[in-house]
Amino acid sequence: MSIELRKQLFEQLDQIVLVDPHSHINPLSAASTTLADILGYHYYTELSHSAGMPKDQIEEPGLDPKEKVRRLVENFGPIENTIQYSWFIEFAQKMFGFADERLTTDNWEALYDSAAERMAKDDWEETVLRESKLEGIFLTNDFDDTLEGFDTGRYIPCLRTDDLVFHLAKLTVVERLENATGISISGREALESALDKLFEHFVSKGAKACAISLPPDFAPHYVSDNRADIAIKNILGKGDDAAPNDRHAASNFVFWSLAERCRQHKLPFDLMIGVNRGVYETGVYQGQDLYDSRVSLIQYRQLFNAFRDVTFPVSVLASVTNQELVSYSWIFPNVVANGHWWYSNTPAYIESDLAARLEAIPQTKVIGYYTDMYKLEFGMPKFAMFKRILAKVLAERFVIDRGWSEDRALELGKTVLRGNVESIFGLGK
Amino acid sequence: MSIELRKQLFEQLDQIVLVDPHSHINPLSAASTTLADILGYHYYTELSHSAGMPKDQIEEPGLDPKEKVRRLVENFGPIENTIQYSWFIEFAQKMFGFADERLTTDNWEALYDSAAERMAKDDWEETVLRESKLEGIFLTNDFDDTLEGFDTGRYIPCLRTDDLVFHLAKLTVVERLENATGISISGREALESALDKLFEHFVSKGAKACAISLPPDFAPHYVSDNRADIAIKNILGKGDDAAPNDRHAASNFVFWSLAERCRQHKLPFDLMIGVNRGVYETGVYQGQDLYDSRVSLIQYRQLFNAFRDVTFPVSVLASVTNQELVSYSWIFPNVVANGHWWYSNTPAYIESDLAARLEAIPQTKVIGYYTDMYKLEFGMPKFAMFKRILAKVLAERFVIDRGWSEDRALELGKTVLRGNVESIFGLGK
Amino acid sequence: MSIELRKQLFEQLDQIVLVDPHSHINPLSAASTTLADILGYHYYTELSHSAGMPKDQIEEPGLDPKEKVRRLVENFGPIENTIQYSWFIEFAQKMFGFADERLTTDNWEALYDSAAERMAKDDWEETVLRESKLEGIFLTNDFDDTLEGFDTGRYIPCLRTDDLVFHLAKLTVVERLENATGISISGREALESALDKLFEHFVSKGAKACAISLPPDFAPHYVSDNRADIAIKNILGKGDDAAPNDRHAASNFVFWSLAERCRQHKLPFDLMIGVNRGVYETGVYQGQDLYDSRVSLIQYRQLFNAFRDVTFPVSVLASVTNQELVSYSWIFPNVVANGHWWYSNTPAYIESDLAARLEAIPQTKVIGYYTDMYKLEFGMPKFAMFKRILAKVLAERFVIDRGWSEDRALELGKTVLRGNVESIFGLGK
Ligand SMILES: [Zn+2]
Ligand SMILES: [Zn+2]
Ligand SMILES: [Zn+2]
Repeated sequence: MSIELRKQLFEQLDQIVLVDPHSHINPLSAASTTLADILGYHYYTELSHSAGMPKDQIEEPGLDPKEKVRRLVENFGPIENTIQYSWFIEFAQKMFGFADERLTTDNWEALYDSAAERMAKDDWEETVLRESKLEGIFLTNDFDDTLEGFDTGRYIPCLRTDDLVFHLAKLTVVERLENATGISISGREALESALDKLFEHFVSKGAKACAISLPPDFAPHYVSDNRADIAIKNILGKGDDAAPNDRHAASNFVFWSLAERCRQHKLPFDLMIGVNRGVYETGVYQGQDLYDSRVSLIQYRQLFNAFRDVTFPVSVLASVTNQELVSYSWIFPNVVANGHWWYSNTPAYIESDLAARLEAIPQTKVIGYYTDMYKLEFGMPKFAMFKRILAKVLAERFVIDRGWSEDRALELGKTVLRGNVESIFGLGK
Repeated sequence: MSIELRKQLFEQLDQIVLVDPHSHINPLSAASTTLADILGYHYYTELSHSAGMPKDQIEEPGLDPKEKVRRLVENFGPIENTIQYSWFIEFAQKMFGFADERLTTDNWEALYDSAAERMAKDDWEETVLRESKLEGIFLTNDFDDTLEGFDTGRYIPCLRTDDLVFHLAKLTVVERLENATGISISGREALESALDKLFEHFVSKGAKACAISLPPDFAPHYVSDNRADIAIKNILGKGDDAAPNDRHAASNFVFWSLAERCRQHKLPFDLMIGVNRGVYETGVYQGQDLYDSRVSLIQYRQLFNAFRDVTFPVSVLASVTNQELVSYSWIFPNVVANGHWWYSNTPAYIESDLAARLEAIPQTKVIGYYTDMYKLEFGMPKFAMFKRILAKVLAERFVIDRGWSEDRALELGKTVLRGNVESIFGLGK
Repeated sequence: MSIELRKQLFEQLDQIVLVDPHSHINPLSAASTTLADILGYHYYTELSHSAGMPKDQIEEPGLDPKEKVRRLVENFGPIENTIQYSWFIEFAQKMFGFADERLTTDNWEALYDSAAERMAKDDWEETVLRESKLEGIFLTNDFDDTLEGFDTGRYIPCLRTDDLVFHLAKLTVVERLENATGISISGREALESALDKLFEHFVSKGAKACAISLPPDFAPHYVSDNRADIAIKNILGKGDDAAPNDRHAASNFVFWSLAERCRQHKLPFDLMIGVNRGVYETGVYQGQDLYDSRVSLIQYRQLFNAFRDVTFPVSVLASVTNQELVSYSWIFPNVVANGHWWYSNTPAYIESDLAARLEAIPQTKVIGYYTDMYKLEFGMPKFAMFKRILAKVLAERFVIDRGWSEDRALELGKTVLRGNVESIFGLGK
């Protein structure tokens, strides 16, 4: 009975035109040119490598894309159970009528060639967007991105600030900041002016959010101007030699300053909490990061109390932190639950995390899903996965367990899937 | 199939007359006088505030109750998905024949007036108790509560000890202790006599438990009399200026002394573990507390080993601590799993936590549920939520997964729902 | 519908002949002689004790086995809900045609006698193995086990190293090492030669793994030969008086040296992470250990990076660590998810942990289950529990949620249940 109900709810959710609130799309080349862009992404290379495929076979310099796909397909046997693998198969079936369940050494080449041909057509980007029912996609822009050459109404700028907060000691970062703002970063005040300039640039280009990914031990706190003066002077240009306490003070100061500017420009500040970079030192590109799940949102107590008029859409990397995210979104008006991130973006975790969110967080404070995608082709299968799970949770925990009508459950699904993205990021205005 | 089975199990569980092992009922005004007592409680004010309703609109001094309800109802749209909202709707439907699914600006006033009228009747308290099938409710009494003016057979006294353990440095607390016991608290010995007096008073009034809520980092240990002498002298009357190490020693000493008196008087000592008070500094009244979920029950190793003849009904605030609670109840004879507390009192967490408890903890050591309610009207809907989940877990994990008969599953349900409350708190005697 | 599907999948999984990758079987007396060997095991004594049965009634010196079983049965009422109890009942029903659901003071004696009679037959061990479809069982051998007197093709040696890593300061441990290797342990170099000898002995006897159980705070790191020289000299013979920093250095050195020898001999190194020994000081034998669940696999970062050519089958004691195990197995080629250990070996945790593993870890890197059993009789019921859950997860999350065919789901089940045990532990070679 519940399977029928799920299907009906899914069908209706699947009609909704979507806005993706977080992605890593390059707006100047949003879609893929060959299957190598998709299968060569860390989703598949890290799994093949983990299952035994040597890194140098995958990341051989100058490797022809088609040869790369051939090699990967030969090693895909062990990863056919993964949800990531199912994203590719669903995409290939829906967009290219791929008739099989698995990619094999026999059937991959025909798919590769027909895909390459189709992708070469000018309308491929529009086709993927239309088939995925995506009318807006948030980007993740470096702070010195000129934001030129694309429709910022469709590809919505978002100021990514990891470099500013954690790598200000690097010469390269300061140079980029100086080039982007025309301000010579001599100390705290110059830095603050530069930050103002960045925000003005991004807001003028229609940016709708600021974002940052944070390590598990980050506990942001206010830093006085005096302390910041010293810290920033001490770290500029020092790179790894910068003293830890100065780096710590500078990071907190910059982070706090970003929150102040989010308040000023009314921009939500996406916090993506709990990643440790480069844990697997010799992993494939973008296949090295993991995490320490011993995190608490109490580390953000000062921030949430100090910036009550800044909205913080929060993602947590570990599902064991989801209950705190539910409770902090339940209590703090400025904390919002935001999607299912990376290692928690698989059905078992999405289902349990989403069920807990939908029954305790006010419905206007749950942003259902973002794709985190690097190429447009991932949009349809990843959102489809989420919509199936949303339909399952609505069917089982609202219609069956709590006696809701199908319509009322659908209302909640639409609010979480689309409504809140608009209201929280102020897309209408 | 399983939905039918669930319904049958629920119907039978729903016949059981209950005793609520933990609540915050004021026995001298146990039921509400208007819907404002219910909808004005933090369950709803914290959610409305979190969804955007300004605190001063909710907590305007001298606000007329009906006006307060009108304002809240206007802001209830965003919280209609929450399980807390469903408690109110189920109560209104069952007790006042409320015909709708949602409270709206159109239908709230008629309900408010008919409720006020009904609640004004003398038999309202009896009616609510009868409809909820509640024949006993544990209270949470301040240590200086005279326990006069109510039937302690129905409203069962329980000595709440947070103030004694954590706020002995406050002058107000010592004054209340002196007034309650007639003993001048000059130091450790006087304090111990005062504690004896409190226990004698409570036991004489039929108290069946001692209780305390504990922060996530509490790790109780034995403190020698000499150390306690110094610590207590140092903190008396000092308030916040009391030295941290003395406060720490005094807290542990008082806590250990309470456990000793629980042993002496054969009183279970409810430990409610893992709350951080006042995390959201400007939240609504009672809507400020949250938690750090990085807790382990190994912090209670010394306590459980030292007081093997004291029963500790343990509640954990974070669901990530539930497995430890299951394992420690599986191994330590004096540890008992006690209900689903606050942020873990929503269906998704109750279901997973209960399933883990019922398959690994001896069935005589699982106290199913307590309402933690502040007004009687919450009893029926909160117990109904739990009974539906208990029926679901029994149906799916015992009848279907393990081939149990319906009767055998029902037996387990009755034991957990009522039997253990009697045996563990010695209600029969 | 899904219940039917589950049954079909279970039936087919139940035909598979198994190899148990981790147990505590004594190969010289693998099966029980009376029910006392089974019901007298900590699985049941710790639960009966936890439910109120005094330890001295259970562990009375010289207690006649049948009398022990009588006493236990009298106290089994409170533990009839536990999954451990169901293992015994299922075994009794399948192997002895026990017709009831519960063991009672009326029906236990007939079962005891018929079992004792049957167990006394020479073919009992073969019968149990055949009925359990077990053709290989990994042992847990002390480092000084001569590995004589049994078929190492069936009972597969595995070098257990807890004593070497954590108890080298004990005179008894050094004496056993000296007796086993004929090398006088004067310092680091002698110790290394002794370790080489142990590995050669075990490998010559067909050992297929090395294993260790680790406390929650263990974070292995490289220790230089010089530091090890000092540390080992300082702790030899000192027992508990050995200085903590020297014990710490020695533990890490020995652990690192074991990993080096696993690399050299191509042996997987089973890491069983997260147990605190003797938490309940006066518990029954083997019923004293519990855990602090605040663990992260980032503590093993150095180890996993340093030994990329050693396979680490990892078990975690707490289910809250399972997501990290999934993510680290997803990324690190040399990390493999290994079974469901002890406090996580109950259906609710197995189901959620297994679902998360099967959808994100390459299918060749998930070792489905091990029994951890002490007597052969536990094999059938424990594997049956796992196979039912595996069938449920495959039915619901692969066939229903992801549209897989039954055959494809069955393939995955076989790989996880049997295939990977062979490939990961190199059983074929
Ligand atoms: Zn991202
Ligand atoms: Zn309470
Ligand atoms: Zn073991």
